[in-house]
Amino acid sequence: MSFKNDLFLRAFTDEKLPRPPIWLMRQAGRYLPEYRATRGKAGGFMDLCRSPSFCAEVLLQPLDRYDLDAAILFSDILTVPDAMGLGLSFGVGEGPRFARPLRDETAVKALAAPDMSTLQYVFDAVAECKRALTTDGVQRVPLIGFSGSPFTLACYMIEGGGSTDAFPLTRRMMLQRPELFQHVLDTNVTAVTAYLSGQVEAGANALMLFDTWGGVLAPRLYRELSLAPMQKIVAALKSKFPQIPVMIFSRGAAHSVAAIAASGADGLGVDWQSDLVDARAAAGPHVTLQGNFDPLLLTTDETTIRRELAKSQEGFDSHHRYVANLGHGITPDTDPALVEVLVQTLRSS
Amino acid sequence: MSFKNDLFLRAFTDEKLPRPPIWLMRQAGRYLPEYRATRGKAGGFMDLCRSPSFCAEVLLQPLDRYDLDAAILFSDILTVPDAMGLGLSFGVGEGPRFARPLRDETAVKALAAPDMSTLQYVFDAVAECKRALTTDGVQRVPLIGFSGSPFTLACYMIEGGGSTDAFPLTRRMMLQRPELFQHVLDTNVTAVTAYLSGQVEAGANALMLFDTWGGVLAPRLYRELSLAPMQKIVAALKSKFPQIPVMIFSRGAAHSVAAIAASGADGLGVDWQSDLVDARAAAGPHVTLQGNFDPLLLTTDETTIRRELAKSQEGFDSHHRYVANLGHGITPDTDPALVEVLVQTLRSS
Repeated sequence: MSFKNDLFLRAFTDEKLPRPPIWLMRQAGRYLPEYRATRGKAGGFMDLCRSPSFCAEVLLQPLDRYDLDAAILFSDILTVPDAMGLGLSFGVGEGPRFARPLRDETAVKALAAPDMSTLQYVFDAVAECKRALTTDGVQRVPLIGFSGSPFTLACYMIEGGGSTDAFPLTRRMMLQRPELFQHVLDTNVTAVTAYLSGQVEAGANALMLFDTWGGVLAPRLYRELSLAPMQKIVAALKSKFPQIPVMIFSRGAAHSVAAIAASGADGLGVDWQSDLVDARAAAGPHVTLQGNFDPLLLTTDETTIRRELAKSQEGFDSHHRYVANLGHGITPDTDPALVEVLVQTLRSS
Repeated sequence: MSFKNDLFLRAFTDEKLPRPPIWLMRQAGRYLPEYRATRGKAGGFMDLCRSPSFCAEVLLQPLDRYDLDAAILFSDILTVPDAMGLGLSFGVGEGPRFARPLRDETAVKALAAPDMSTLQYVFDAVAECKRALTTDGVQRVPLIGFSGSPFTLACYMIEGGGSTDAFPLTRRMMLQRPELFQHVLDTNVTAVTAYLSGQVEAGANALMLFDTWGGVLAPRLYRELSLAPMQKIVAALKSKFPQIPVMIFSRGAAHSVAAIAASGADGLGVDWQSDLVDARAAAGPHVTLQGNFDPLLLTTDETTIRRELAKSQEGFDSHHRYVANLGHGITPDTDPALVEVLVQTLRSS
């Protein structure tokens, strides 16, 4: 496979780059009018995720607007528990809901990793995205595949949806029935390993584990219940696909950057509530950092964006093992013109 | 003033104590049926806060049930901005709301520290609580006064209420109009200093700054916009009242424990998402730590509470400069019988 632009992949080597590669979490999304049009044609959010051709269509939209150096599969982090039979849905203007959350021992003991054929629609979407990125055998930019982390999936699976209060049902099971909680994590490790392997086999060039909720745990518990399961997945993937960079993004886990850097992952995401310079000091020089602009900047103005980007990178070498990105996903109220300001400012940095 | 039980105050010296003093954040609250009865008599939540006799009544309720070593003024963290004219209210089952939030330059520039006479009801409540704690000139346990921190108050004052999304309006003002944001902080420093001084003059024996939201900021910003204003307040209070211990509780700021410990505060609160042993290592031996049991434990069972308390204090000296407490307030779904389990387990530790 040859690439028209492989800057993103080169950020996972010790090479000094001419500029940092750039992509943006949730770069295909509701802030773009063309995304809203495709979404309207597709029906619900999961209908969009289940259609390889619509996935490829929205994947290309931000690449056609902005000079970005990577594309990310259009999908959801909760496809795996959905395939386990928990019944995922998204209400209008609401977050995810599971019809059959894991609320008791019977439900947890019945849980098993799904047959990967139930996730074929995701692998088909990867393949279709890959085709859409490729012209005459040359791929425009690398394609990133992803999954939710075992702990983050467990949060939604037990709680039955999101939480504004640090997932009390989930943490209560964790404290009162640690053996049941461990079974959920172990099942997720098996499932996510197979799921990400399938994405690589379908054409993904790099992988990311989104650990949105690991940061609700105290540091020791985070390392035991969120990082350790991810580490098992990373080890399995690296032994099978040594050339494929794997990244861990644990939001709110700045306390454990050194441990994440030592986990075997090639890179780690830095959230906007962390400092990039501190993350580099804790991670050491041989792990790739990705982040960490505040998505809120994209709802301010040009002057503020330029000033804050300059400030946030003071004392930081952005040309070495660094991928410029936000520290969390783009929000729907983002002005697409300010995304252009951000990308252009970063390209000249 | 003499105390029947001064263990809490002695935790702010280098004395080795026979056991750790204990109190619980939000120990007077909705989980207690007798509190709900008083609240019913008082009317709304602010009616309760505005009545010195009802404040004293609910202050004593947890002390009569449990062996606790400190009492805390019954009030709200938002009394100061209410006194600034922002119009505080609490809807049924909702969080706080300000009728006149600081949404533009005109509103911010009109902001000034309130005349302390508008907060006389709080000073009266302190005095009444003190009387209720005192028999024949001997005070049962020390009385803690408190305020919201300048940054946390600013969050509510600009946003107009709580936020599940890290206070976007507040942070947008902070990024786009830093001079306006600084004016809000400076005004809050002046007001909170006068407010806490008034509480000491009315009889408070120790003070606490609740910085519920400083942790939404990245570490450098936290130290600049949340810790630095608190430090000004601590310096002013310590020069006026050198004998009164002052504590800072910044939720989600484990990254800056060393800086808080060096701020001049006598103690710091540790939240349940931190590790106590790490906090001690960062704080050094001469600052008092308070915390940090997960309030969720009080909704589990006796076995889980005993096991988790033992685990959380492994390798930690709880008899020296330590106040046993939760890492966040008691939740309304807490079982009062489990509070007894927690207190008894801690008293024998």
